[in-house]
Amino acid sequence: MKYTIALLAGDGIGPEVINEAVKVSDAIAKKFNHEINWTPALTGACAIDAVGVPYPDETHEICMAADAVLFGAIGHPKYDNDPSAPVRPEQGLLLMRKKLGLFANVRPTFTFPSLIDNSPLKRERIEGTDLVFLRELTGGIYFGEKGRLDGGETAFDTCTYTRAEVQRLAKKGFELAMTRTKKLCCVDKANVLETSRLWRETVQAMEKDYPEVTVSYEFVDAVAMRLVQWPNSYDVLITENLFGDILTDEASVISGSMGLMPSASVGEHTSLYEPIHGSYPQATGLNIANPLATILSAAMMFEDAFGLHEEAATIRAAVNKSLEKGIVTEDLAAKGATAYKTSDVGDWLVANL
Amino acid sequence: MKYTIALLAGDGIGPEVINEAVKVSDAIAKKFNHEINWTPALTGACAIDAVGVPYPDETHEICMAADAVLFGAIGHPKYDNDPSAPVRPEQGLLLMRKKLGLFANVRPTFTFPSLIDNSPLKRERIEGTDLVFLRELTGGIYFGEKGRLDGGETAFDTCTYTRAEVQRLAKKGFELAMTRTKKLCCVDKANVLETSRLWRETVQAMEKDYPEVTVSYEFVDAVAMRLVQWPNSYDVLITENLFGDILTDEASVISGSMGLMPSASVGEHTSLYEPIHGSYPQATGLNIANPLATILSAAMMFEDAFGLHEEAATIRAAVNKSLEKGIVTEDLAAKGATAYKTSDVGDWLVANL
Ligand SMILES: CC(C)[C@H](C(=O)O)[C@@H](O)C(=O)O
Ligand SMILES: CC(C)[C@H](C(=O)O)[C@@H](O)C(=O)O
Repeated sequence: MKYTIALLAGDGIGPEVINEAVKVSDAIAKKFNHEINWTPALTGACAIDAVGVPYPDETHEICMAADAVLFGAIGHPKYDNDPSAPVRPEQGLLLMRKKLGLFANVRPTFTFPSLIDNSPLKRERIEGTDLVFLRELTGGIYFGEKGRLDGGETAFDTCTYTRAEVQRLAKKGFELAMTRTKKLCCVDKANVLETSRLWRETVQAMEKDYPEVTVSYEFVDAVAMRLVQWPNSYDVLITENLFGDILTDEASVISGSMGLMPSASVGEHTSLYEPIHGSYPQATGLNIANPLATILSAAMMFEDAFGLHEEAATIRAAVNKSLEKGIVTEDLAAKGATAYKTSDVGDWLVANL
Repeated sequence: MKYTIALLAGDGIGPEVINEAVKVSDAIAKKFNHEINWTPALTGACAIDAVGVPYPDETHEICMAADAVLFGAIGHPKYDNDPSAPVRPEQGLLLMRKKLGLFANVRPTFTFPSLIDNSPLKRERIEGTDLVFLRELTGGIYFGEKGRLDGGETAFDTCTYTRAEVQRLAKKGFELAMTRTKKLCCVDKANVLETSRLWRETVQAMEKDYPEVTVSYEFVDAVAMRLVQWPNSYDVLITENLFGDILTDEASVISGSMGLMPSASVGEHTSLYEPIHGSYPQATGLNIANPLATILSAAMMFEDAFGLHEEAATIRAAVNKSLEKGIVTEDLAAKGATAYKTSDVGDWLVANL
């Protein structure tokens, strides 16, 4: 088969980790007789530098025309000190999510047996953890009306959800739960927020369509606790945009494998795959960043966007082998062991697919 | 000295743990020659049952007339399944916070050497953790306009803050930081929310009045991660109401001593002291609930509301001794060791002050 993949490397270490994912994807394509046509495009700080906006129309057209988007990371320290600067890389991210209709962010958290002792949690707490958040990504307080009143002395943000927005996200949650242990947790703050009550009543009304799925409803503050105490008690969790932002990041560090966690954003048009880590500006150009999260995001792309299960499994098996053999970058290297370079890890994987 | 303390035992285990705090407080009063006049009042589910509302006017008047409020816990399972029921215990909590002007919720997280191995985190991660959140408690999305549109198909919640609201909370944060290691972290989502940008610019403008305090600004998602990874890197944190709800609960479980964490809510009128745990309905009447968080909340009350440092220190020393000697309820009892009853722990403390 032939696939066109939009390649949005972004800023910081983005281009370096993307590079390794391309290497590995090309090797997989060769091995399984596919053809990949990579179409690079600008986004983030590098797009602002080049054309003045973080998500240029041209980039959007490239994404719309592609079978999938592979994304690196965006953000540059020169934008860090002033979150109210008129043009910022994050705006590109939000615009991209909205324009591509990426309403569901899929964020797995799982453990690698060989890395479990990297977790800040004790082994017995984290062992067996394998959960997935579905975070709503194009609604809520991120996109509601916001502004100032009283000459700037009062600020407001509006969180809005429609039943249809909740339904399409929840549908993905129920469907995902059906492919796993059939346990779904709806995370809200229905004791305080009207939008949460809409979430809860909408999900409750959908339960009858998925009689095999056991649904629980938990408040966001309780989930923030239980994720640290007993993360392995969760399977699929669905939640709104802002709660998802906070909880998926919390969940990402409990496994001790944050540098390895892939993600997908799916919705109305082309799906997007990206590592959950940031642009790690301090490491830019040093060839030390861990490329595995991006490579595993490519595996997710083969699996979910193209339905190529064996291809995905082959990548994952190679990654597992590299972890077992210690072919890893400095963030994962054992004390005293040699750390491999970003490109070494990619090369090793290509040679060991 | 003579003190009038409003006693809001609430629901579930509330009355049992409050009872022990009263015992210990009375013993302290006797030892140090104070007189305490306890004025009990209804709140929560028991108030709904008795008079139809969760925070009756009479209770409010009793609180306003008191030198401090000691609060147990509220909530009853009969209200759990329907977060949109017209009258609910939590509404009493929110009304009480608003009417008493309790705009700052003070939530310490610290460790007890003898309990450190109860933490879900590894010892080297949690050791030395001693942080305090100041959560804004009477503003934000909890109290903004909310409702439905389009015949119920669209829901909205509004988050609003004024500069004055941020200033009074931040002022408490700066002042607290001055009494500790002079490190203050402002937690926001200024890359997305207008209210967060108001928070950040307001705190930035106050920095010059506290030149000795080092202020950092971190996004709420990053803090949710770092609280699990390196909680001991924080000291004083200030944040808005909803972020505070999530992060203080997350912080409470990392120490492994959640059943021991006290809290205070302070503001325009009488200050309130309460354990951070809930009403634990399953344990009601069994005399097994851990009373230490309530007793330590009473210590906080002696210290902060009455300025009685020696009295507070005496309570804390006795609590430490009880922990060392294993005079603890079943939640903390070592495997195979006898668990003490709620009332036994109170009695032991009274005898060992
Ligand atoms: C950069 C920021 C706007 C973004 C978000 O809050 O969604 C990020 O934290 C994320 O989770 O992708
Ligand atoms: C019960 C609920 C309304 C309350 C809150 O969200 O403030 C609780 O979670 C708390 O933190 O005291």
